[in-house]
Amino acid sequence: MLNKNNILSLLLLFIPVSIAAHYLEWGSAVVFVTSCLAIVPLAAWMGTATEEIAVVVGPSIGGLLNATFGNATELIIALIALNAGLVSVVKATITGSIIGNLLLVMGFSMFLGGLRYKEQEFQSVVARVNASAMNLAVIAILLPTAMSATTPGIDESILQRLSVAVALILIIVYVLSLVFSMKTHSYLFDVGMAENEEEGETETEAASHKPNIFLWVGVLLVVTLLVALESELLVDTLEEATSQLGLTALFTGVILLPIVGNAAEHATAVTVAMKNKMDLSVSVAVGSSMQIALFVAPVLVIAGWFMGQPMDLNFNPFELVAVVVAVLIANSISSDGKSNWLEGILLLAAYAVLGLAFYFHPVVEGFV
Amino acid sequence: MLNKNNILSLLLLFIPVSIAAHYLEWGSAVVFVTSCLAIVPLAAWMGTATEEIAVVVGPSIGGLLNATFGNATELIIALIALNAGLVSVVKATITGSIIGNLLLVMGFSMFLGGLRYKEQEFQSVVARVNASAMNLAVIAILLPTAMSATTPGIDESILQRLSVAVALILIIVYVLSLVFSMKTHSYLFDVGMAENEEEGETETEAASHKPNIFLWVGVLLVVTLLVALESELLVDTLEEATSQLGLTALFTGVILLPIVGNAAEHATAVTVAMKNKMDLSVSVAVGSSMQIALFVAPVLVIAGWFMGQPMDLNFNPFELVAVVVAVLIANSISSDGKSNWLEGILLLAAYAVLGLAFYFHPVVEGFV
Amino acid sequence: MLNKNNILSLLLLFIPVSIAAHYLEWGSAVVFVTSCLAIVPLAAWMGTATEEIAVVVGPSIGGLLNATFGNATELIIALIALNAGLVSVVKATITGSIIGNLLLVMGFSMFLGGLRYKEQEFQSVVARVNASAMNLAVIAILLPTAMSATTPGIDESILQRLSVAVALILIIVYVLSLVFSMKTHSYLFDVGMAENEEEGETETEAASHKPNIFLWVGVLLVVTLLVALESELLVDTLEEATSQLGLTALFTGVILLPIVGNAAEHATAVTVAMKNKMDLSVSVAVGSSMQIALFVAPVLVIAGWFMGQPMDLNFNPFELVAVVVAVLIANSISSDGKSNWLEGILLLAAYAVLGLAFYFHPVVEGFV
Repeated sequence: MLNKNNILSLLLLFIPVSIAAHYLEWGSAVVFVTSCLAIVPLAAWMGTATEEIAVVVGPSIGGLLNATFGNATELIIALIALNAGLVSVVKATITGSIIGNLLLVMGFSMFLGGLRYKEQEFQSVVARVNASAMNLAVIAILLPTAMSATTPGIDESILQRLSVAVALILIIVYVLSLVFSMKTHSYLFDVGMAENEEEGETETEAASHKPNIFLWVGVLLVVTLLVALESELLVDTLEEATSQLGLTALFTGVILLPIVGNAAEHATAVTVAMKNKMDLSVSVAVGSSMQIALFVAPVLVIAGWFMGQPMDLNFNPFELVAVVVAVLIANSISSDGKSNWLEGILLLAAYAVLGLAFYFHPVVEGFV
Repeated sequence: MLNKNNILSLLLLFIPVSIAAHYLEWGSAVVFVTSCLAIVPLAAWMGTATEEIAVVVGPSIGGLLNATFGNATELIIALIALNAGLVSVVKATITGSIIGNLLLVMGFSMFLGGLRYKEQEFQSVVARVNASAMNLAVIAILLPTAMSATTPGIDESILQRLSVAVALILIIVYVLSLVFSMKTHSYLFDVGMAENEEEGETETEAASHKPNIFLWVGVLLVVTLLVALESELLVDTLEEATSQLGLTALFTGVILLPIVGNAAEHATAVTVAMKNKMDLSVSVAVGSSMQIALFVAPVLVIAGWFMGQPMDLNFNPFELVAVVVAVLIANSISSDGKSNWLEGILLLAAYAVLGLAFYFHPVVEGFV
Repeated sequence: MLNKNNILSLLLLFIPVSIAAHYLEWGSAVVFVTSCLAIVPLAAWMGTATEEIAVVVGPSIGGLLNATFGNATELIIALIALNAGLVSVVKATITGSIIGNLLLVMGFSMFLGGLRYKEQEFQSVVARVNASAMNLAVIAILLPTAMSATTPGIDESILQRLSVAVALILIIVYVLSLVFSMKTHSYLFDVGMAENEEEGETETEAASHKPNIFLWVGVLLVVTLLVALESELLVDTLEEATSQLGLTALFTGVILLPIVGNAAEHATAVTVAMKNKMDLSVSVAVGSSMQIALFVAPVLVIAGWFMGQPMDLNFNPFELVAVVVAVLIANSISSDGKSNWLEGILLLAAYAVLGLAFYFHPVVEGFV
């Protein structure tokens, strides 16, 4: 049977293929698709390397590493796209990652987990705290959009300054949420950690496992470089390739790129859900959304400010609607701490409906 | 004392009266009001006939019958109005049915039930699953409106195609929710069913009750024909009568028609609430909203597409606001699984405020 | 150590200072700031006097007094501002009071309480009923705004009539909620009351405490007169002073005035939170928001109608966004009945983000 690891190993083949496609000029569409596929296993290796290093350096610095590199793939793609001036695509990727984690990842987890188990539970306090932090973060990054939508003719520079200020507040909240989870309330998070470790090493004794830190730091460096490299190929060909494929930049940013950047985490969340560890599965999905909104988005705003790119938090108004919808449905379904296959279907249907809406969404003038 | 059955029997007199009013040309207002009143007992008989047939054909096909004919009256009125080109009235009826079930029906149930019992409970998993499905469905049918509102100058044909695609997804979800409630998780719904049966036959033994299926199929056919007939009278006179009564088409569609179409279910929900069966009462209200959003609305969109009527899911933006408000308040009040008379008052007040807003809402150009 | 009572006593000095500043013409900014500071201890004394009188007249009339005078300071400031024609400032104060209670007061309570206690609980039914009533009220007072925003070119007189009708419904709901808390379900509120009393008199026996009613009625009269007086100074200098300080009227109304009017309650909520009485703390914050929305706002609409001022419930659309955001975050954080310091930080961060947005919000034409 094809399992997750085999598929990831096979996808590594797309690294040389995408590079060949670039130098041999096989066309934008080929380069774009192959570099997308090549990023999937690299993101998975980045996750593995971070976790192995975390085992060596201990929970404190390890937790910090996980918190910083957790969405590193998306961050690298977004920074390269930002540098290339694809501001709207970067914004779309932010909303798309939030929507994708809450609806697609959580939906598949609840659906596939629910096919095996009549009812699954995930009452953990972790999910609850993460959800509150995510709600705040999502609302905060959408406020400039709301202000722009309700105040016709507002000055761009006001939105940029407001966005930078909001970004700074969110990064402070992110740091405080790390203090909460690693220092003052770390005991709440022990269960999840334990399950997480168990996941990685069902065969060996966790205690006797001593990863070679130099090896894994090397792996992390190589993988990070390769992700950056492939992201360059992806970003360079994005506009031409997507227009050849009949897709808008909005659809690419909201639907396509987040699936590529999150594929490995998606697989993890679904796998643990099928082992009836819904606590961990929901934590991965909600935690990843939270990290996007509390850390990745603010970093991109501040990076854009330094790069001189007009990166603010003024999204397409329909992106605001989509994120609010995703948050409301995810809250409504997860608030009782129980799930079944139909609830998974409801989340997937919400994702499908939003995906359709973005597919049909007309290209608005001024949108790259 | 005037009980529910006596009132329904008396209202049957309006069938001949409305027909007489039509042929003897007593004026649009008289025909409109009498046909409205005539539909109320017919809707009740349609419900009774469906339930009796369901007893004979068994829970599976019976459940399917209930799921299909549960909102048959509203569907028939809407189809006839749609055929007559009253697209905006049909849309208004959809939002009005959702609002009416969540606020008016649930409000009266909680208020009148709460006058008898200090605190009532309805922690059933059924209410929870229904609420999640309804949240999804409501959001899905409002997405085209949100897209239209946030994208000035969007092409009508895009909204129509998006609406049809959303409708198809919702019908798939509806079928899957029937699989959930009748096959994979039917045990969750047994309690509700049992209470429901008990309701109908407090005197006789449920086991010994064997309805005559031919009789009830005959009743169902006759009643369906009469509903259609009365709906024709109602739709024909709607525009003239409401303008004579000083009402806008929007107010008629959102407030008046849903009360007529749902009167029988309203009575049921309130009656069982007063018997302290809040589980069933809330299930009726929330389940009916869910059915409107997951089944009736999609069917109308697809029917409109075949009829060549411009029926899409692009509502008046204020209808969107009203439905979102109704869903949020209903969720806020029902989420703890307890109710008291003040919570009923809060729901009724919300309905009154929305009703006032629709009453004062100016006639917008282009609205039939 | 500087405790709450010492600070309040010191602030009383600003009463003569503000009056001197007015007569000696020390400038608008000085009068404005000193009258703001003078109102803080007066509001606290008004609260104390009301509670002492309530002890004498018994729970029924006492509860009524508390319910009416609970936000008397804000009401007096708003009425004087309304009479001076500062309609937009009055509206901004309403939204600002709701936001401030839900985010700033509850945020500080949860944060400072959470620094002392790992996890605090507040599962009381009172918080739940208040939250539902507040949700309704907030939605109701925002409906005219939603109608105005979704219906371009709507007539002002329609919004005014709708606002008055909504105000009347809300006042009825307010009266019914008093019947609920004082008559039919008073037992639910006994715990909160008991804690409240205990708060005031940890040293003496509550039973043996007999306040002199004539003394306290006198205090209440004098304090009310002084509040009115200081409010006149505040309102007279508001426009000139705030423009000198570089603030917009919107920011002053939404952020500054509610802090002044609510300072005493803020102190109470935080103090009891630090004594681990989160039930009471949350009740104060949510209850005060509820009172603003169910009582103060409707009274102001009706008063404006009598004064001939164009006071309706048509707010700045971004105010609507801010209030909805505040309600959603407060619901999300309080719905589980538990709190910790990070949740306090999340509420404060939300308040900071909204405050920034209002600070950056451009002055819209037509806004006084």
